[in-house]
Amino acid sequence: MQLDHPLYAPYHVTSPFKLASIDTSDTQGWKKEDAKVKRAQNREEIAELQERLYAEGKRSVLLVLQAMDAAGKDSTIESITRGVNPQGVHVTSFKAPSKEELAHDFLWRVHDHAPRKGTIGIFNRSHYEDVLIVKVKGFAPPALVEKRYGHISDFERLLADHGTRIVKVMLYASKDHQLERFRQRLEEPSKWWKFNPADLKERELWDQYMAAYETALNRTSTDYAPWYVVPAEKKWFRTLVVSQLLLDTLKQMNPKYPPPSFDPAEFPPDSLV
Amino acid sequence: MQLDHPLYAPYHVTSPFKLASIDTSDTQGWKKEDAKVKRAQNREEIAELQERLYAEGKRSVLLVLQAMDAAGKDSTIESITRGVNPQGVHVTSFKAPSKEELAHDFLWRVHDHAPRKGTIGIFNRSHYEDVLIVKVKGFAPPALVEKRYGHISDFERLLADHGTRIVKVMLYASKDHQLERFRQRLEEPSKWWKFNPADLKERELWDQYMAAYETALNRTSTDYAPWYVVPAEKKWFRTLVVSQLLLDTLKQMNPKYPPPSFDPAEFPPDSLV
Repeated sequence: MQLDHPLYAPYHVTSPFKLASIDTSDTQGWKKEDAKVKRAQNREEIAELQERLYAEGKRSVLLVLQAMDAAGKDSTIESITRGVNPQGVHVTSFKAPSKEELAHDFLWRVHDHAPRKGTIGIFNRSHYEDVLIVKVKGFAPPALVEKRYGHISDFERLLADHGTRIVKVMLYASKDHQLERFRQRLEEPSKWWKFNPADLKERELWDQYMAAYETALNRTSTDYAPWYVVPAEKKWFRTLVVSQLLLDTLKQMNPKYPPPSFDPAEFPPDSLV
Repeated sequence: MQLDHPLYAPYHVTSPFKLASIDTSDTQGWKKEDAKVKRAQNREEIAELQERLYAEGKRSVLLVLQAMDAAGKDSTIESITRGVNPQGVHVTSFKAPSKEELAHDFLWRVHDHAPRKGTIGIFNRSHYEDVLIVKVKGFAPPALVEKRYGHISDFERLLADHGTRIVKVMLYASKDHQLERFRQRLEEPSKWWKFNPADLKERELWDQYMAAYETALNRTSTDYAPWYVVPAEKKWFRTLVVSQLLLDTLKQMNPKYPPPSFDPAEFPPDSLV
């Protein structure tokens, strides 16, 4: 089985890649009702495959999610993990690093959250922030940031060689779409806690962020850790695409229930007392 | 609001407590269909309250689940967390301790998984194993185990004083019910990986385990970290009871969206560009 479903194949990053090649509002002509049906089917298949991955206990999946503010990372994670046994999924949200974390190389804190065998790890933001915000805001010397693309690919190969299937997704929405989402947050007091005036400052750096994303995507999309740039403006469509990616990844891995630790012939059910 | 809903009030442990006072197949006359409706309502309320807990970011919940094998810990956790944002829930499954963990006091590894503010932590097994299996199998000197009830209560008070609401649940099923569940596992090859002949050895120690549970329940059910012994033989009933406990705990905490970090008057939605 190849990872080439029409739902995500057009969004696979192969260098040279331009963000402008992706239509942020694309839905491939899908209707919302049909997407929901497909999504529900995918959910059942993912739950079944995840149980096998967990039982097998030999390999893991790492789903990296990156996006600008308000592109839907949280809601995508919520939707993707619904119906999946929470003991086999671990979501890590990477915030601004602590002093202790800054006292180490940038991958130190990330390594600690690499998914354990049998589980699916989801990164809400990730080590890519160290070549995105860090680059745009100048938090590290440019010569060091330049080296990090290689560090990242080396690190991801280490994980891949030890049984982790890596899939990386940028949820891609337009600057106008973000504006609309920010306005919605301001109109609803129960969403105020999600809004910070500092977010408007980041907005002013939109073009620099897009340039940093484009560089990162081109330099770190590998066969063992590919990037997909998913149109994110329609919630139901982005969720469908990411669920299809996760499903096909699991299908390709084809995890198996392990052989029993006992001889079933020696333990007929009726023999138990 | 008091935590005294009829669904769980009869199962609240107050010393002197006897396990024999609980009917493991109790359903309080509930019908499965009605339980499912109530369960769905609870799920929505829990999801809403959890979002507020997460937004508030000041307090946390710790749900401790203990049970003998095959009483339904995994399926209870799966059901309870369904529909809840996975970024605000962290499930920790405590297995046999590693050499590194054994090189510290028994609470060292547990402390590391105390729920962070804004989240719900769920322990699948816990520090209570250190006064259960450890006591029954003699893995630690009896005089040390004897001291641990106090260590546990001191530790739980530390967490409670720092904003963690602790709820502890023993899922209680009979020895015969376990036998039935083991037989079901042996009849279904896709469940073989869950079966281990060593589980039958533990079964022989059933009475010693029940005595250890009874001691632990009596000595560590406090006002800040109460125990509930929930009849677990009907999956739909045990799930309903635990969901009601979690819901009422969250309701009593009554988390609030934090005040905005900005003056809303200064940021009318239309002002954004």
